[in-house]
Amino acid sequence: MHKIEGISASEGISIARAYKIIEPDLSFPEVTVKNKEAEINRLHDALRASINELSAIKKSVVDDLGNKEGMVFESHIQMLSDPDFISSIEQLILDKGVCAEKALDVTSNNFIHLFKSNVTNVWMRAQIRERTSDVIDIKRRVLSHLLNVKLPDLSLVDRPVIIVAKDITPSDIAQLNGKYVKGIIAEFGAQTSHSTIMARTLKLPMILRAKGAINGIRNDDQLIVDGLSGMIIVNPTQLQIIEYHKKSRAFHIEMKKLVNFKEKLTTTQDGRQLSIEANIGNDNDLVAATNSSAEGIGLYRTEFLFLGKQHLPTEDEQFESYRKAVFRMNGRPTVFRTLDIGNDKQLNGIELPDEENPALGIRGIRVSLSADQLFRTQLRALIRASSYGEISIIFPMISTIHEYRRARKIYDEERAAMKRDGQNMGSVNLGVMIEVPSAALLADEFAKEVDVVSIGTNDLVQYIMAADRMDSRVADLYQQLNPAVLRILKYVVDAFHVEGKSVSICGEMASSRLAVPLLVGMGVDCFSMNSDSILKIRKLISQIDSKYAKKIVNDVITNAATSDEVVQKLNDFLDKI
Amino acid sequence: MHKIEGISASEGISIARAYKIIEPDLSFPEVTVKNKEAEINRLHDALRASINELSAIKKSVVDDLGNKEGMVFESHIQMLSDPDFISSIEQLILDKGVCAEKALDVTSNNFIHLFKSNVTNVWMRAQIRERTSDVIDIKRRVLSHLLNVKLPDLSLVDRPVIIVAKDITPSDIAQLNGKYVKGIIAEFGAQTSHSTIMARTLKLPMILRAKGAINGIRNDDQLIVDGLSGMIIVNPTQLQIIEYHKKSRAFHIEMKKLVNFKEKLTTTQDGRQLSIEANIGNDNDLVAATNSSAEGIGLYRTEFLFLGKQHLPTEDEQFESYRKAVFRMNGRPTVFRTLDIGNDKQLNGIELPDEENPALGIRGIRVSLSADQLFRTQLRALIRASSYGEISIIFPMISTIHEYRRARKIYDEERAAMKRDGQNMGSVNLGVMIEVPSAALLADEFAKEVDVVSIGTNDLVQYIMAADRMDSRVADLYQQLNPAVLRILKYVVDAFHVEGKSVSICGEMASSRLAVPLLVGMGVDCFSMNSDSILKIRKLISQIDSKYAKKIVNDVITNAATSDEVVQKLNDFLDKI
Repeated sequence: MHKIEGISASEGISIARAYKIIEPDLSFPEVTVKNKEAEINRLHDALRASINELSAIKKSVVDDLGNKEGMVFESHIQMLSDPDFISSIEQLILDKGVCAEKALDVTSNNFIHLFKSNVTNVWMRAQIRERTSDVIDIKRRVLSHLLNVKLPDLSLVDRPVIIVAKDITPSDIAQLNGKYVKGIIAEFGAQTSHSTIMARTLKLPMILRAKGAINGIRNDDQLIVDGLSGMIIVNPTQLQIIEYHKKSRAFHIEMKKLVNFKEKLTTTQDGRQLSIEANIGNDNDLVAATNSSAEGIGLYRTEFLFLGKQHLPTEDEQFESYRKAVFRMNGRPTVFRTLDIGNDKQLNGIELPDEENPALGIRGIRVSLSADQLFRTQLRALIRASSYGEISIIFPMISTIHEYRRARKIYDEERAAMKRDGQNMGSVNLGVMIEVPSAALLADEFAKEVDVVSIGTNDLVQYIMAADRMDSRVADLYQQLNPAVLRILKYVVDAFHVEGKSVSICGEMASSRLAVPLLVGMGVDCFSMNSDSILKIRKLISQIDSKYAKKIVNDVITNAATSDEVVQKLNDFLDKI
Repeated sequence: MHKIEGISASEGISIARAYKIIEPDLSFPEVTVKNKEAEINRLHDALRASINELSAIKKSVVDDLGNKEGMVFESHIQMLSDPDFISSIEQLILDKGVCAEKALDVTSNNFIHLFKSNVTNVWMRAQIRERTSDVIDIKRRVLSHLLNVKLPDLSLVDRPVIIVAKDITPSDIAQLNGKYVKGIIAEFGAQTSHSTIMARTLKLPMILRAKGAINGIRNDDQLIVDGLSGMIIVNPTQLQIIEYHKKSRAFHIEMKKLVNFKEKLTTTQDGRQLSIEANIGNDNDLVAATNSSAEGIGLYRTEFLFLGKQHLPTEDEQFESYRKAVFRMNGRPTVFRTLDIGNDKQLNGIELPDEENPALGIRGIRVSLSADQLFRTQLRALIRASSYGEISIIFPMISTIHEYRRARKIYDEERAAMKRDGQNMGSVNLGVMIEVPSAALLADEFAKEVDVVSIGTNDLVQYIMAADRMDSRVADLYQQLNPAVLRILKYVVDAFHVEGKSVSICGEMASSRLAVPLLVGMGVDCFSMNSDSILKIRKLISQIDSKYAKKIVNDVITNAATSDEVVQKLNDFLDKI
């Protein structure tokens, strides 16, 4: 028995034998070709065969997993049909007389290189990693046809197994036989990749970045995959198997029970009614939100309409997306956050300065207030969307009342101009994100002036603790449960309640098992989170007595000096429910 | 009449005719030399002549301005005697047969290039700018001897003038005839340069970065130099001359009165006794502190013993510096801040990570806690210094109580070990800088555990406002007088007073005319600042009624929502005193 640790990318527990994916040999001799036309034909045969294969994969994925997951393969097909891509390969064959394999290899690498050279920030790095692995996946498939080598085909698995691979591609997952494959382990991979999303949809436990898995696991070794903790046990003891069978059963019962919470309202044990809404960034998220019984959109991150685009979306394009959300929510609250770029999010068409500390620089409303037309265009699109149902608009990274007043003035101007032009519009609530400490400390003043508020704990915590949340070196100082953070949160909630205004929370804390009892105790009215977490948190809230939670809040705020003390008190509380 | 705007680098007002420094022609033909030995002799003659000249300048500077100012020329002399520098020039003559002028030029540029290539951060850029202008100054002098050209000699000025130059070197200022030179204007230059320090010592108004001064001013034009606002008036009207004569007289009377405050205690109008201490970074600052009647060292920035050094200072070297400060303070408080590097301050011998947001990364105590030996060495040196008088040690960038406890534990261990070894030591107060919002929000908890506290407003403001104080693009959001900042400051002061502990402030706010009335009103006990400002602030405090100031604090904290409102209320207050 030995253990291997990785990062949990999809929850669940499985026990089965290892099935190692052996990477096929896709090396090739670099020959000079005489008959260039024949070589180009050979290339097109391979491209065609790859596209046919991908179409079949796509169809089965759409059938089994849904449209969203099928999109990955549609994008692979599109790339293999891309004239730029194909003509680059052809040109290499024609100009240099290299073989199709080499031409494909060079072209793919050029594309990857091109992606990487455009990388200017963290957010893009994540995007690039994903597109890079897509190109590698495509190249591999075309090469396999050129070389007449079979790629591993997980549809051939005929007994319960756990897949062990160096890296796991979306096509691997698409082809796997869901009846037999019980879990996935890979040495590489990112929690945000397409593969991860697919594994979650299939409810397959998956552990990524499991260093040493390839060498530490032999074919047919018995494995326990604990997708809750990220732990792999190789050749477990009988006792461990019994223990994990129990854990697995408990997990499944838990999951099944969660479905019941789709039909329920969000109510504390003592009957206080709260609401859980969704954070969304695109149409797919919108579908997921309604499927997970979100009681509204608590945070529409509008920058995702802008990011990764070649040009800035027009007013009409923006309006179309906003309208869709309002329409789909059908009367439920919809809160749009205006463009929040800067720091780790950059976009084409807006030149942002190169700053020593971008997190303390031009970002959020600071960008919008210095890019007047961009801001007005977005506000007009939002005002038009309001004719399909009441909406809220909140401004990100507000540090001063003055900024809010400036933003509101621009909004008022656009609204008045549109009214004069006879534009239809509905009612709009204006407000702010509270995520800069200065805004939190002036919550009472903001509460007098804004209609709606959402506390963005992710940034607020990073400024309160002076610890970059993207910087792993200060991760231990990025403390969501530090008493200082809890004090300021309570201060903000109280200040808005004094003015009779409800408070929404949209950072990671809103879906954190440890933080939620405290937020309930503070009186937070709305929890906004990724749709994944909605049912879990609705269930948790149903087990919390808000009056008791309030006592805990007062206890930690008065008596706890450190994050550790808070965590201990919370664990004591959670153990009892 | 027209106006030219620049940056005030030395206060005061002067009216006189322009004296433009004409840069001498130091160009030379690039000839190949036959007799290399003769050329090397020519070089050494020029070096010797330059050193003689510099020695004379140094002597007159030391006599007129003091030891500190003389150091600049000592460093020039040392550079001209530096074997590396000289042999590089000689080698070029020997290897390439170039003339001494060319060899000097190439070598100087290489040195500058070498400096610049080591630049990794803002702080170093400032240092490099200074050293670069020193090398240019030296090259110019040696070239003048090689070419037998006379450098401008300001000692020859024989009538009241204002110097107008492209750039002003320390040697220019050193040579000027203080009887006749009334002010200095330059198109370039930094507020932190040697020239600036010298001009201040000479009490000469100086305006730097006055764009267009060379073209916009003719020799003998009449000029008004307003070193208070940074404004230059060229050929003023008679009315303007009368107005500025008045302003100048008022300024001088004001300055003379300030000297009286050297003998006085720091007392508010209503008799509350406060103290003003000095922020220092080196021995020179220590001298300035005692000369300005500082009532103690409120902040010894120990990192300046480390910065710019080739190696880390040893325990003995550190001890020697600390001891000197304790000894010189002779019973007055001496507060040492442990090493505060990271962000814009880096040092040789300590590898810091390259971070996206260094201001939110590894800095201050975070560095010390991860560099155990470095930290222990510094603590031992400080403990040894305590045998010469009671000292305080404060830790920078503390975000959590846990960090303070860890630092204190390491201190306790070292102290116990030294005691076992029979080391002499006196009493030491331990404490923290409050500059991270989380520490400010937990001030009551810190107040229970620490002996001393100093509020570092520079960083605190940047985190509270989420605006990098080095980033000019968000300068309007870096608001020291935002009500949010004032609220948290008052909270911290109150929390420490509850525990009966006094509070010191050591950021820029401590010497800001607008902020001081509020800090007095909050009950801040000690103001620590650069020695330059001590008398001015002591005078200001003497005019403030602390009970009335307290009312203003309560007013702005309760009623002001923006920084502008606070500033207005403060201006009203200051107008009346």
